[in-house]
Amino acid sequence: MDRVIRVGMLGCGTVGGGVASILSRGSADITARAGAEVRVTRVAVRDTGKDRGLSLPAEIFTTDARSVVEADDVDVIVEVMGGRQPASELLRRALELGKPVVTANKELVAHEGPELYAMARTARVDFAYEAAVAGAIPIIKPLKESLAGDRVRRVVGILNGTTNYILTRMTEDGASYGDALAEAQRLGYAEADPTADVGGHDAAAKTAILSSLAFDMAVHDRDVFREGIEGVTATDIGVADRLGYVVKLLGIAHREGDALAVRVYPAFLPKTHPLAAVRDSFNAIYVDAEAAGELMFYGRGAGALPTGSAVVGDLIDVSRNLLQTARGASESIHRPTSLFPVDELQTQYYVLLEVADRPGVLADVARTFGRHDVSIAQVWQDGGGESARLVLITHRAREGSLRDTVEALAETPAVRKVASVLRVEARRCSTRNVNP
Amino acid sequence: MDRVIRVGMLGCGTVGGGVASILSRGSADITARAGAEVRVTRVAVRDTGKDRGLSLPAEIFTTDARSVVEADDVDVIVEVMGGRQPASELLRRALELGKPVVTANKELVAHEGPELYAMARTARVDFAYEAAVAGAIPIIKPLKESLAGDRVRRVVGILNGTTNYILTRMTEDGASYGDALAEAQRLGYAEADPTADVGGHDAAAKTAILSSLAFDMAVHDRDVFREGIEGVTATDIGVADRLGYVVKLLGIAHREGDALAVRVYPAFLPKTHPLAAVRDSFNAIYVDAEAAGELMFYGRGAGALPTGSAVVGDLIDVSRNLLQTARGASESIHRPTSLFPVDELQTQYYVLLEVADRPGVLADVARTFGRHDVSIAQVWQDGGGESARLVLITHRAREGSLRDTVEALAETPAVRKVASVLRVEARRCSTRNVNP
Repeated sequence: MDRVIRVGMLGCGTVGGGVASILSRGSADITARAGAEVRVTRVAVRDTGKDRGLSLPAEIFTTDARSVVEADDVDVIVEVMGGRQPASELLRRALELGKPVVTANKELVAHEGPELYAMARTARVDFAYEAAVAGAIPIIKPLKESLAGDRVRRVVGILNGTTNYILTRMTEDGASYGDALAEAQRLGYAEADPTADVGGHDAAAKTAILSSLAFDMAVHDRDVFREGIEGVTATDIGVADRLGYVVKLLGIAHREGDALAVRVYPAFLPKTHPLAAVRDSFNAIYVDAEAAGELMFYGRGAGALPTGSAVVGDLIDVSRNLLQTARGASESIHRPTSLFPVDELQTQYYVLLEVADRPGVLADVARTFGRHDVSIAQVWQDGGGESARLVLITHRAREGSLRDTVEALAETPAVRKVASVLRVEARRCSTRNVNP
Repeated sequence: MDRVIRVGMLGCGTVGGGVASILSRGSADITARAGAEVRVTRVAVRDTGKDRGLSLPAEIFTTDARSVVEADDVDVIVEVMGGRQPASELLRRALELGKPVVTANKELVAHEGPELYAMARTARVDFAYEAAVAGAIPIIKPLKESLAGDRVRRVVGILNGTTNYILTRMTEDGASYGDALAEAQRLGYAEADPTADVGGHDAAAKTAILSSLAFDMAVHDRDVFREGIEGVTATDIGVADRLGYVVKLLGIAHREGDALAVRVYPAFLPKTHPLAAVRDSFNAIYVDAEAAGELMFYGRGAGALPTGSAVVGDLIDVSRNLLQTARGASESIHRPTSLFPVDELQTQYYVLLEVADRPGVLADVARTFGRHDVSIAQVWQDGGGESARLVLITHRAREGSLRDTVEALAETPAVRKVASVLRVEARRCSTRNVNP
């Protein structure tokens, strides 16, 4: 091989443009670091006529993506088109041909990651996807490499910038959910149809990818229990604040014996937790490992240049390996997938009830909790008359028991409405003695 | 080579014990990830008779470190003895013999890093030192690999757990410096002679290592301008709090044109900065890069298991490379070292003056600032009579001008004492528009 790594790009939208511009402006440094010039030789796009404002020659653009994958003058595939198909088919073809792949495609990796990792391993080439989770934040490589000798106990992520932006506005400006969402849409942080973000689907896909890596088992995004932030109100955030918490949309995975408990939901998080300070559209991933202890990785979760930076980092790695006919670290998906049933999860809960303002209501409510084995840690009444509300924080309880309690509360005459139910995440208290 | 990587350990104290115990309890996973069994075959120690509570056979211990480096049954050297000599000589010998090295030795890397990187490059073997900076936190690899295509603008680190613990106690409990230091010593966080920590020497060494990597030039720890936290008082911390800041000991490096400005000192940091939430003995490194934007890496900066986790992560990398006769990413120290003169640095300053309580004092003081081209952003009087004090926050000013001002203030009759001078770090305001 001569000292040029020839890159075939699939897609050239926002992220692709970021990749191309980083490659062109940093080319001398990149050549030094990769050990070869990294040159884009072919680009597959839907519309070859569009002006992308890039310095790439017009003749390397084509609408035939398969021809890019198969071209003799393409050594590495960079996939930034997104979506399941045709990306899946194209990348599988690349791996069959023994060509390493760099992808930013979260959806694809969340659905087919373990299969693709196995294909890459068989083909003895790299399959790199740092950009698929949390944009610019290096998290795939730390999990795969830096923590390779360690055992991860828990991963907690703020993995969606849109929802973190909305919750930050609600917390800091007292905005309602609707107003904060509208502002996010106006700023281009949220789509016209915001479901993928606010419903937690995007966070669930990223949680699945991180879980597979951190816990050595294939986790599909449908395996992730999921609730969105649509129901979070200014009242919930006010109660959280008063009790020393912030509300965050969290992707959480932790070991329960040999099983993995994995879910995405908005939760109360102590203000002293490192993730609590993650504001606006930033992302962060907190990792608790047996030897390393608590770690956190923070940064931009999206955007052309941040995501492009992660793609180019991977591309340099892959190029360096290719020149040495070596491979980077593999995923180690060697445990059978075993999911801990959500109903058996134990956490504390915050419950907000709209109630009748008359004597005996608290007794009725408390009896309902007690009957389902959920004990109350704290309770107070907020407002009176028509707007009388009970705020309750439970002790740790089974998710299943809490759900039964909520169903029963809805049938309790004194309860007009179960307004909110949110989980309260405790920070693990390390008992290990670690010197600074 | 058969499928065993034979490790020679130099030293077996706190960190070495951590490494040995992580290797023994995670051996199946580590074998899967390294592609070979990673087995400690020789260990050099000062006292072979000491019971270390490890499962390593007694006969592999020796006091002859050089024999470990040169042994035919040692493929990789793990150096956890610390100190400049004999570590330097031993690791140079290992590299000459073509044996890859993993080290946790901050002092050695801070003084001789660039030379050792060059030797490793010539020998075509790995020289890995993730554990030398910020213990368990993956920061070397992200700088060397993940950001390889990017251009770092600024690195700011909380790199010393002892001082961060002391400053946290002063901030959260209102403790005096002396009491907080005594508590840190009682808890084993600070040495009996705390100079290396509180004087900023430890942080300066780590700042030098990170600067070389992030800015592609050889930076020695003597190149780092340094002030410790010995002079920080409860009053300083109270003023910071009132103005929306916390006081942190920061290692800072940033580009000024083609030069690098690099220093360690305690400074006011805005409470909204991601580093402001780093409490107790935790470490964190904030990186601002052109494409990736703001990143932060957070975790345990020291301790047997956290540091051991980083050593083992490196060891697995190095082993995987060795099996493929490949090398990991190299440092890219290709720019001539060019240091920006400290006197030309521009920041805001906080100045606390003990003054006479009489009319005209403020005018005298203001005139002194003005004469040296330092303009005052904010000033107020605190207390009166014997304890009258002026608190001043300047606009951005040259370090040299501020120093001249302080010298002149000491000569001003109305000023009884210049009690404190601390820098105020602004958070860079990104003007780039990044979507979440």
